[in-house]
Amino acid sequence: MAHGAGGKSSRRLVEGLFAPLLYPDSAGPLTDAAQLSIEGTRIAVTTDSFVVKPLQFPGGSIGELAVNGTVNDLAVSGARAEVMTVTYILEAGLATEVLEAEVRAMASAAQRAGVQIVSGDTKVVEHGKADGMYITTTGIGSLIHGMKIDPGLIRPGDKVLVSGPIGDHGVTILLARGELDLEAELTSDTRSVLPLVEVLAEASGPGIRWMRDPTRGGVATSLNELARDCGLGIVIDEDAIPMHDAVRGACELLGLDPLHIANEGQFLAVIAPEYSDAAVNALNLLPGGEDARIIGTVCEHPAAAVLVMTSYGGSRIIDMLVGDPLPRIC
Amino acid sequence: MAHGAGGKSSRRLVEGLFAPLLYPDSAGPLTDAAQLSIEGTRIAVTTDSFVVKPLQFPGGSIGELAVNGTVNDLAVSGARAEVMTVTYILEAGLATEVLEAEVRAMASAAQRAGVQIVSGDTKVVEHGKADGMYITTTGIGSLIHGMKIDPGLIRPGDKVLVSGPIGDHGVTILLARGELDLEAELTSDTRSVLPLVEVLAEASGPGIRWMRDPTRGGVATSLNELARDCGLGIVIDEDAIPMHDAVRGACELLGLDPLHIANEGQFLAVIAPEYSDAAVNALNLLPGGEDARIIGTVCEHPAAAVLVMTSYGGSRIIDMLVGDPLPRIC
Repeated sequence: MAHGAGGKSSRRLVEGLFAPLLYPDSAGPLTDAAQLSIEGTRIAVTTDSFVVKPLQFPGGSIGELAVNGTVNDLAVSGARAEVMTVTYILEAGLATEVLEAEVRAMASAAQRAGVQIVSGDTKVVEHGKADGMYITTTGIGSLIHGMKIDPGLIRPGDKVLVSGPIGDHGVTILLARGELDLEAELTSDTRSVLPLVEVLAEASGPGIRWMRDPTRGGVATSLNELARDCGLGIVIDEDAIPMHDAVRGACELLGLDPLHIANEGQFLAVIAPEYSDAAVNALNLLPGGEDARIIGTVCEHPAAAVLVMTSYGGSRIIDMLVGDPLPRIC
Repeated sequence: MAHGAGGKSSRRLVEGLFAPLLYPDSAGPLTDAAQLSIEGTRIAVTTDSFVVKPLQFPGGSIGELAVNGTVNDLAVSGARAEVMTVTYILEAGLATEVLEAEVRAMASAAQRAGVQIVSGDTKVVEHGKADGMYITTTGIGSLIHGMKIDPGLIRPGDKVLVSGPIGDHGVTILLARGELDLEAELTSDTRSVLPLVEVLAEASGPGIRWMRDPTRGGVATSLNELARDCGLGIVIDEDAIPMHDAVRGACELLGLDPLHIANEGQFLAVIAPEYSDAAVNALNLLPGGEDARIIGTVCEHPAAAVLVMTSYGGSRIIDMLVGDPLPRIC
């Protein structure tokens, strides 16, 4: 299960098996979406399968997640989702109402995100397989102009921005499974981050060096991947990280680090220092961006690692997610 | 299971639930791939999930099928696959060798078909939830020029062409499951049909009215969909249909109609009569196209139905696949 959790084992699987065989010509670090040319037009393409359990949870459902997740992978790659394809792998015996609810959720999320669903496929597998349904979406996007995303330009002193409170999605799913005797007023943060990214591009486009949506593996995994790819250190101020009390409380009780918990409606960005105030101010003015803030800085040291400055004046190195404390959250 | 078999129930599910909600703006009949514009460039897009059982079978495997199936959906829509995305849903505990074999099969099939794999995703589900693996591919293609695919132009007298022997894939899968005490020298026909389609386009491009790869539901289902969409009749000469003896024999023994059996490396085309000789001659000269031939004619009657003229001088109406005698063949 750890190989699907988005952390260290996932990366090893991708770098050791998939990438050399499937993308032999690809250079540079792995990203959320590929950019390529079709007959001279630059497009971005991304794909994801969704196997979240349960299918519905406070604040969202698998269908909504499948649309927003793909829209967001494009958005953090600097692209606006234009069209999307959808496939369903359905478990035999699935109630029509359940399927219809998810198809409706997808149609509605697609409309909100401004993306058109253009093609699809359905397969049915035997009862007991597929947990109701698995959904795969692929998004094709056009490039948002005015951004200069290039991790190669990241320098010490660049700022790390987060778009809002972290951990809502992962903790919501954990509680929705009902396996723990815990309750909290919490909903998944699933949403399209495209409006936020577009505002960010307008406010500080030339200063945006990198973006990522910290889903599986959480903020810590995304930042570790970045640190490793650029060889620099990332120092995070724990007190600055926006987080709901319910997330903090649940993580303390369960011994989980909120920095490893998955998000679905947030993104991280590295921004050149001269653009960071403009970035935060612009996001804070947009509904849904009120809690965006700078949470850290790129430094020379620790090289290729992430350091968290704790509330009590100490510090700790935080690694990628290892193992999978929270399987099947998306 | 019948809803995933590609026959009548599948069509009802797509037309009754998916299409009105997901493609509310789409006009006209459902096709294998969507054509659309991104920043002024016309592209074709298609997606499919693959859940074939067993994962490996004589002549191919799920990975090869997943590449060829998507290349072929584009090809019969008049497009050349340029790039492809891949997602894997893996069952926990799957042997690394099995995964690696499929990743290699995909890389090799992609190279043969001239398509580049650009993006991917992996999820892992619990043991028992995914039969080893499910694969989803999405293909993006550029349009092949010189064809005039438009079912609206189909007229009585147009010819129905098949690219080669039918039924190999479905019967191979059926036998590979080992549930029947039957053996035959037969392999799946999985392959890219793009080279054949390109030759067809050169030889008789302006005369090509329609193409389809008769996968789930077989030749009968594809032709019934066409007959229904254009309102005309399609009369097939049973003796003209190319078929291996092993397929004929297995179908007779099992009471299956070869016209309902899935193919993976064949396509059907409707061609204006003045172009049909050129089409057949050109295909026959290409390795893999030796058995291409005309198997029927578009007629006024029976309206919106498919009639098979049998070897014994009789005739029978053949409907779409109803139910699912052969689940999970792709």
